[in-house]
Amino acid sequence: MTTLKRADARKNIESIMDAATTCLARDPDVSVAEIAKVAGVGRVTLYGHFESRAALVTQVVERAIRHSDEQLGAIDLDGDPRTALSRLLEASWQLTQQYGALIVAAEQSMPHEQFQAVHLGLLDRWKPLMERGRRDGSFRDDQPLEWQLTLLQSVLHAASGAVYRGEIKASEAGGLVDGTVQAALTAPGSTRG
Amino acid sequence: MTTLKRADARKNIESIMDAATTCLARDPDVSVAEIAKVAGVGRVTLYGHFESRAALVTQVVERAIRHSDEQLGAIDLDGDPRTALSRLLEASWQLTQQYGALIVAAEQSMPHEQFQAVHLGLLDRWKPLMERGRRDGSFRDDQPLEWQLTLLQSVLHAASGAVYRGEIKASEAGGLVDGTVQAALTAPGSTRG
Repeated sequence: MTTLKRADARKNIESIMDAATTCLARDPDVSVAEIAKVAGVGRVTLYGHFESRAALVTQVVERAIRHSDEQLGAIDLDGDPRTALSRLLEASWQLTQQYGALIVAAEQSMPHEQFQAVHLGLLDRWKPLMERGRRDGSFRDDQPLEWQLTLLQSVLHAASGAVYRGEIKASEAGGLVDGTVQAALTAPGSTRG
Repeated sequence: MTTLKRADARKNIESIMDAATTCLARDPDVSVAEIAKVAGVGRVTLYGHFESRAALVTQVVERAIRHSDEQLGAIDLDGDPRTALSRLLEASWQLTQQYGALIVAAEQSMPHEQFQAVHLGLLDRWKPLMERGRRDGSFRDDQPLEWQLTLLQSVLHAASGAVYRGEIKASEAGGLVDGTVQAALTAPGSTRG
């Protein structure tokens, strides 16, 4: 293959993955034909690079997970645990919004164990901060840590669903997520500022 | 049909619906053959009463919704809103546990609008209590009511998932749901007992 042809192939692959990310984030059931159309390539070209819809979805999800992991990894988790939690929640909410229904597409196309493994990898980012905050009294420790991690994830998904259904505005969702999680991590009888 | 035959038919229908409730609550993808086996009837008898798997699931779900609605309707929602909320959460958690994966089966088999309509009917039970608690200062009112209703539902589902995955014990889940929701409904800076 010539250098020019290789550059063309790379460009096509990138267009297809970008288009697939956008399309799947809107509609997890979007067809390959629609993705090819948005990418500006033919279906034959698409299938030349990705052997099946599932293979394309897997690569798109893996790229989104890598990107999410980089974004979350760049966040300063030092200092006051409550403030650090707000930073982490804000970034997580942005990623939840950006990738939206991609998570649904992933659950449909990837083997369950594989999806759980990469998704749980992201949750690991929360663990040291939650542990530190529980130790220094910033967060309640009368509930299991596992439950609190599940709750964080569940509030983010609830917000995503509520925005999708038009119950809350996308612009207010980040604040609601933060306000809800911060309150849920406060033990009864204690006060926070 | 003779009286005896009618009684037999009624008994079979009841056995099939009980078996379907139990089986679907464990596994939303359970086969009709398995349901018939658990009910102690043949597949031909089952299809004589329910024309398709979807028809059976719909009737089972409608019965579960009616039962849930009766259970929730029997709860005393007067007096201190926080205590009333605990009663409502406890009953809702019991129903969530009892019917488990039935909700997943319902989403797969019933038209989306029909499912939403019956499910939202149950959520209406929460609304007057939440409104009263927001008015008298028992619950925070710095977040939209719609969001708080979504959150209640989402915490119940999170607990159900966490029990299923073995992250928390079924016996502690009710307390975690109550403790989490009560905290989430407390505004920052305020204290509750």
